[in-house]
Amino acid sequence: MTRASSFRLDATSGKARTGVIQTPRGDIRTPAFMPVGTAATVKAMMPESVAATGADILLGNTYHLMLRPTAERIANLGGLHSFMNWDKPILTDSGGFQVMSLADLRKLTEEGVTFRSHIDGSKHLLSPERSMEIQKLLGSDIVMCFDECPALPADRKALDDSMRLSMRWAARSKEAFGDRPGYALFGIQQGGLEEDLREESAKALREIGFDGYAVGGLAVGEGQAAMFGCLDFAPDQLPTDKPRYLMGVGKPDDIVGAVKRGIDMMDCVLPSRSGRTGQAWTRRGQVNIKNARHADDPRPLDEDCTCPACRNYSRAYLHHVFRAQEMISGMLLTWHNLHYYQELMQTMRDAIAANDFAGFEARFHADRAEGDIVPL
Amino acid sequence: MTRASSFRLDATSGKARTGVIQTPRGDIRTPAFMPVGTAATVKAMMPESVAATGADILLGNTYHLMLRPTAERIANLGGLHSFMNWDKPILTDSGGFQVMSLADLRKLTEEGVTFRSHIDGSKHLLSPERSMEIQKLLGSDIVMCFDECPALPADRKALDDSMRLSMRWAARSKEAFGDRPGYALFGIQQGGLEEDLREESAKALREIGFDGYAVGGLAVGEGQAAMFGCLDFAPDQLPTDKPRYLMGVGKPDDIVGAVKRGIDMMDCVLPSRSGRTGQAWTRRGQVNIKNARHADDPRPLDEDCTCPACRNYSRAYLHHVFRAQEMISGMLLTWHNLHYYQELMQTMRDAIAANDFAGFEARFHADRAEGDIVPL
Repeated sequence: MTRASSFRLDATSGKARTGVIQTPRGDIRTPAFMPVGTAATVKAMMPESVAATGADILLGNTYHLMLRPTAERIANLGGLHSFMNWDKPILTDSGGFQVMSLADLRKLTEEGVTFRSHIDGSKHLLSPERSMEIQKLLGSDIVMCFDECPALPADRKALDDSMRLSMRWAARSKEAFGDRPGYALFGIQQGGLEEDLREESAKALREIGFDGYAVGGLAVGEGQAAMFGCLDFAPDQLPTDKPRYLMGVGKPDDIVGAVKRGIDMMDCVLPSRSGRTGQAWTRRGQVNIKNARHADDPRPLDEDCTCPACRNYSRAYLHHVFRAQEMISGMLLTWHNLHYYQELMQTMRDAIAANDFAGFEARFHADRAEGDIVPL
Repeated sequence: MTRASSFRLDATSGKARTGVIQTPRGDIRTPAFMPVGTAATVKAMMPESVAATGADILLGNTYHLMLRPTAERIANLGGLHSFMNWDKPILTDSGGFQVMSLADLRKLTEEGVTFRSHIDGSKHLLSPERSMEIQKLLGSDIVMCFDECPALPADRKALDDSMRLSMRWAARSKEAFGDRPGYALFGIQQGGLEEDLREESAKALREIGFDGYAVGGLAVGEGQAAMFGCLDFAPDQLPTDKPRYLMGVGKPDDIVGAVKRGIDMMDCVLPSRSGRTGQAWTRRGQVNIKNARHADDPRPLDEDCTCPACRNYSRAYLHHVFRAQEMISGMLLTWHNLHYYQELMQTMRDAIAANDFAGFEARFHADRAEGDIVPL
């Protein structure tokens, strides 16, 4: 695995872009949605089923995996791909975001973050160097810089200080990552919603030089309008010849709005988490399968969808198994949601290739405006 | 669907039998193990995965389905096969066993059992006539008589009274079932561990006449030795030209002992329930995947097993996802267990066809005597 990773931009439509990230483990068609496999599994899914939805790449979480089963154990077992039976590319986050949201007794210093595990209380350090080491042990194809991600709203001074710390950590991450042909390192832009801080962050990252650039620090409570406001300028500040990754996004309309603004990659737990709580996403919006209106409905979630949940089961069945708390409820709805998300990405890739993103966007919103099918 | 169901006995080896139950929905190779799909799903499994393990038939539970989503609703939706996406045969129990073990405030009379739902407290009646109606609404291919199943130990008078009630209910079940070409009705022998009561029950059932005969009232707390003691005579009391079904059994060695004694069909929640609690069954016995000895073990559960859990995952992974309470743990272990059970049935069918059941049984016990593979 010595072939380099590279990004090929194939077409644009407005600011929307389509292309391919080429990696030794396979191509990632962009714009790409990455399902989240937090603890070495996309919850409720077999990995071959995740692949069947059209996913080219998964996201794994450094924070969870370092604590359980540990990165060293996964390395001894042959790496994360083999461990979880997924041979396509894997991107791992740096652990920075989740250590701040999940860990106990965390302490932030210039060196990094010390914290106690939320699982067993054991003490750990995450730093740029340790994060790079863990992601290498996991065998991640796309490694993320270790950064700090402040919650929004935050005052400008805090955002400024945090961004500068993240940029120093980005330089240390690059140094620690070293030269690893076939593996990519992405920098993460910070700066909250402040255009000048975002520009300063982008400049610092460009000077260090990365294989891709993430827009970090969004989808942390600011709301869609504020996020889109930031995405009106943030992606433009990043190099055009490298992939741009918006972390932790989002709902289908968030994703469409992000792609429209020049984003190439996204990840989110939403389709899988929704699937486990009885929420389905279709072309016509969100369906709450718990609702009694579905109890006798022989129709599928979406008659045009080709996923197993829609091909083989009625809304009545999906309603029943959710009510009965059967595992197949989460299995089928997660599959449907991931299938819908991947189909949405393919539709956008096709529209961009045809230079018709505006047409796609109009149809996307028109379908949703119709709302769910009317009860029988 | 007007073709009749029939049983063809192909070979015997000692008392062990192999054959085929032919139904309009497909052949059931015997001895057969039926996975349990209580609430219109085999827990943690997609139905196509259940079929891939080699199952020819599923069991559905009348008691659960009549309460939720209700038999009338399933009938309106096209029947249980279509509802749960399983087009092979389905056997449904009569509800008699579970109404006594699960329902609240039950009251037994000659007419049947009135009870309150354990789900919502609603009041219901189960009787031979209502059980036949429900099983017809579900579209069950093999319908079971409504019976009473006393817990063991029980005194002889109670067993006698209960058996006679069940035989009166068997006659009413036959009358209510009527003439339904392509669908089979099975009688259920009762009588506890008493040979003369079992004989009397068998005689009553033979006089009514059924398409198959179940040995009921076992696996209810009497222990394996007592159960085998009863199976030394009970199957012999039933017609040889019809399938014999031992209800609610069991562990692998229970199943082998039952087949040895002339049983053709069995069902049990054990392989799926075990799979959700970290217990795997292999040729070499039971494996508790929770045990820390597996945390670093790169080997599969059983290197000779061809199920997805064994082909694609290490014990270390299975241990990790169980500890992390990930759904894929139950999905993989259930698949493995059902695969192992079906492979065991196929091995027995082959051994009987080769008139070598004794040889099979010796190898079965020798493999188990070895115990699980030693830790690395």
